[in-house]
Amino acid sequence: MLKKEYIIRQLSKTNKKNYENYVITGIIHNLNDLTIKFVTQQCVLNNENKRYLADLYFPQINLFIEVDERHHLNKENEDAMRARDFEMATNGITKRVLVSRKKNNGEEEYTIEEINQQIFDVVNLVNDLVKNKKDANEFIPWDINKEHNPKTWIRKGSIEIIDKVSFNRSVDACKCLGLNYKGFQHSGAKHPYERNTLIWFPKLYDNGTWLNSFDEENGIIKTSSLKNQKQHVDDRLNDVCKRRIVFAHVKDNLGQIMYRFKGVFEMIVDETNYQNGVVWKRVCNTAKTYDYE
Amino acid sequence: MLKKEYIIRQLSKTNKKNYENYVITGIIHNLNDLTIKFVTQQCVLNNENKRYLADLYFPQINLFIEVDERHHLNKENEDAMRARDFEMATNGITKRVLVSRKKNNGEEEYTIEEINQQIFDVVNLVNDLVKNKKDANEFIPWDINKEHNPKTWIRKGSIEIIDKVSFNRSVDACKCLGLNYKGFQHSGAKHPYERNTLIWFPKLYDNGTWLNSFDEENGIIKTSSLKNQKQHVDDRLNDVCKRRIVFAHVKDNLGQIMYRFKGVFEMIVDETNYQNGVVWKRVCNTAKTYDYE
Repeated sequence: MLKKEYIIRQLSKTNKKNYENYVITGIIHNLNDLTIKFVTQQCVLNNENKRYLADLYFPQINLFIEVDERHHLNKENEDAMRARDFEMATNGITKRVLVSRKKNNGEEEYTIEEINQQIFDVVNLVNDLVKNKKDANEFIPWDINKEHNPKTWIRKGSIEIIDKVSFNRSVDACKCLGLNYKGFQHSGAKHPYERNTLIWFPKLYDNGTWLNSFDEENGIIKTSSLKNQKQHVDDRLNDVCKRRIVFAHVKDNLGQIMYRFKGVFEMIVDETNYQNGVVWKRVCNTAKTYDYE
Repeated sequence: MLKKEYIIRQLSKTNKKNYENYVITGIIHNLNDLTIKFVTQQCVLNNENKRYLADLYFPQINLFIEVDERHHLNKENEDAMRARDFEMATNGITKRVLVSRKKNNGEEEYTIEEINQQIFDVVNLVNDLVKNKKDANEFIPWDINKEHNPKTWIRKGSIEIIDKVSFNRSVDACKCLGLNYKGFQHSGAKHPYERNTLIWFPKLYDNGTWLNSFDEENGIIKTSSLKNQKQHVDDRLNDVCKRRIVFAHVKDNLGQIMYRFKGVFEMIVDETNYQNGVVWKRVCNTAKTYDYE
């Protein structure tokens, strides 16, 4: 995808809400920096495990922007959002821009000058946060051709949760761990270099005959089979592969399937049983990468 | 209407077309000047008397912006546009911004950087044209509270076509010529100070039993009655009021009725007959204003 197409498609999602469109296009045009990535209508998970949409999100600096009120999801929307790639609200800063509602003193609505001032405040905040990252040598300029390319991460030597690593295809995730399969389709593959380790592409939410859950905050994955829980649990307990590098199967917010790195997990044998299902705990936020050629 | 509401409503019209929305919000946010008025989807009349829509229009400097191709109207749309306030293409400059189509050499599409550059080119052009107007002391800063207020024009001493004078109500047009009627509804009123002069609010297009036309370029209005042409023509020929100050009854592009000053006209007796209908010719682009209090 070209940056042009990405930017236009992201902004087009804000079109239905007029104030949102004004504020978000204002922020993006005034930033005028194509090295800063943004996402509109980012699915966010709060610390009560509730999902909602942030109107605008800057992944490189973990900044969430909400225009007027937070967009809480109703039950139906929340179900539809289960498969979505999400970010943790607790990992970032949330800034609110108030436009259409009355001021706190109840007297009058925000004027266009006041709205524009809030847009500039957000732009200044973004620039400050980017500068801090640059000063700390932690800013990775947005490069739409490189971000989903395994070579980028092979060159870097590792993938980290904080870098928000994701791939368009599971084969690309395998490639960055040194495994060159073509047309790979399974939910997992043995790691070619690390012992007893599986490269895993789970859906971390209820799907089909699977009851899966992911507590991102505490790094706990649980999987249960509705069809045959006994066999599922026994198989995993008997398996030597008790370490998994997890790329969650998610939908990005343009509706495309994506495999997002969620860390390295180990099975907790003591807690794995027919009642709990199989329990995995995150043991590391980083995985080493290997060349596949 | 507040400037906030005006700006949001104007920009919301561009929402359906993603590239148009990106370019137009880019121009407006980068201009960042609330003294510069803009109109989206402005109805324009070319010198072949054909109407089309300009994506963006700056009335103070007569600049038309078209994103990609010109939006030609089909027959049905053109009928719906008859009642609309329009601008003459020949009075202004037209600048095109190319975004979604292939470059002239046919090789590749415009990149986001090239689109942004074109946005900045437009912004620079607008600023240059505004500066020229300011240097010539001809720039009237956009003031949404003043522009449709008769007091504004009474204070100025005259109304001019070039100032794009319009009123929300016909009583306001009367007021700026010194006539203080309340709830005035007719299609014309006698001027209180100028001899044999009518303040006229015609629909300058076919409507009901009237065949009306307006050649803006040459300043010719023709009116014919389908119901009783003989009486219409005879009445006008016998009337002593052979001078008319014309405020055309139009729809502005937010759908509201507006009375727009089109100049001072005199009846051409030689050309007025049952075949031509009543023929009026513009004799002046300016009308003196009078206080109504």
